Amino acid sequence: MTSKQPTARIRKSSEQVRSAVHQAVIDLLSDSDGADLTIPAIAQRAGVNHTSIYRRWGGREALLADVVTTRLERDWPLNDTGTLRGDLTAWVEAGVASIRTPEGRLLVRAVALSMPSSAHTQAERVQHFQRRIHSIESIRERAAARGETPPPLEEILDQLIAPLYLRAIFGIDPPASGYAELLVGRLLGDTGAPGAA
Amino acid sequence: MTSKQPTARIRKSSEQVRSAVHQAVIDLLSDSDGADLTIPAIAQRAGVNHTSIYRRWGGREALLADVVTTRLERDWPLNDTGTLRGDLTAWVEAGVASIRTPEGRLLVRAVALSMPSSAHTQAERVQHFQRRIHSIESIRERAAARGETPPPLEEILDQLIAPLYLRAIFGIDPPASGYAELLVGRLLGDTGAPGAA
Repeated sequence: MTSKQPTARIRKSSEQVRSAVHQAVIDLLSDSDGADLTIPAIAQRAGVNHTSIYRRWGGREALLADVVTTRLERDWPLNDTGTLRGDLTAWVEAGVASIRTPEGRLLVRAVALSMPSSAHTQAERVQHFQRRIHSIESIRERAAARGETPPPLEEILDQLIAPLYLRAIFGIDPPASGYAELLVGRLLGDTGAPGAA
Repeated sequence: MTSKQPTARIRKSSEQVRSAVHQAVIDLLSDSDGADLTIPAIAQRAGVNHTSIYRRWGGREALLADVVTTRLERDWPLNDTGTLRGDLTAWVEAGVASIRTPEGRLLVRAVALSMPSSAHTQAERVQHFQRRIHSIESIRERAAARGETPPPLEEILDQLIAPLYLRAIFGIDPPASGYAELLVGRLLGDTGAPGAA
């Protein structure tokens, strides 16, 4: 209705905004280890208005959660190998490959940053955690459907997710080979020499 | 030489500065989950000049490392129980008690934030990590002096430190009882039902 351009900024499509904001989060994490990861800083880096970010994601935690879920689904794919052991091993192997890269380590830091603050209840924190690792839940459900008995989620947290995430956060590379088999073997109660699997 | 006060600010002793800056870090972590944890923000909160912080600590990572080491030494004390199993169990129990508190969880987040960025070499990251967990190294050295054979540091990372830290970061409480015995039992190769120790 008006011939005057409301702004000199080129209007981005919804998907372009999402992509630019996601990339800005990754870039800021790389630059600053998360110290400057505020909505205004993200908006400036992405070239979007910070109100668009609040409108779309609500806040920093939800935005980080979206970035993390999108990237983890791309980088840690969910293969059906036919067995619980195979699925878990494939999941750890994908994780090991990912955290050997700087971006993979940043993603794990972003998972940690995207967890709600300690003001939330234990139940809410467990919910957030489960959303982050829904691929592990899928592996457990598939195993149960096959008639296998998957370990409780908390054992998978302690014995598979925790070592991977901590190594990513500390930047301590996993052993060069056999690491996925070692962790999964311990979790599933293998006896004998570690790494013999 | 001059009667004019250089500033209205009351001069703090070196120890007062250290204490105020440490508390400011803890407060900012509580408020913002680390998003605003910049040197200027810390200086403002502590009521000190930001140049004092740069002069004393060099930068954010070194300051965080100092906060974390000081608090962890206070909260996770190092008991000599006479055995490797006893020392490790006492260490995990102290850790479990600590991460049940909001400040304990913040400290672990601060350990993660204080790790050097991915630009550092693997060797430098391992060094930083070892400084953060030097009490574990003391436990290993004491065991070796007794003639016991402690597990490699990386196994302790994967099986004791990682579960505690991840639970702190995710805010997932450890089981109500027997958790330290369970983790240490797994690490030391106990067989049989978990929690039987």
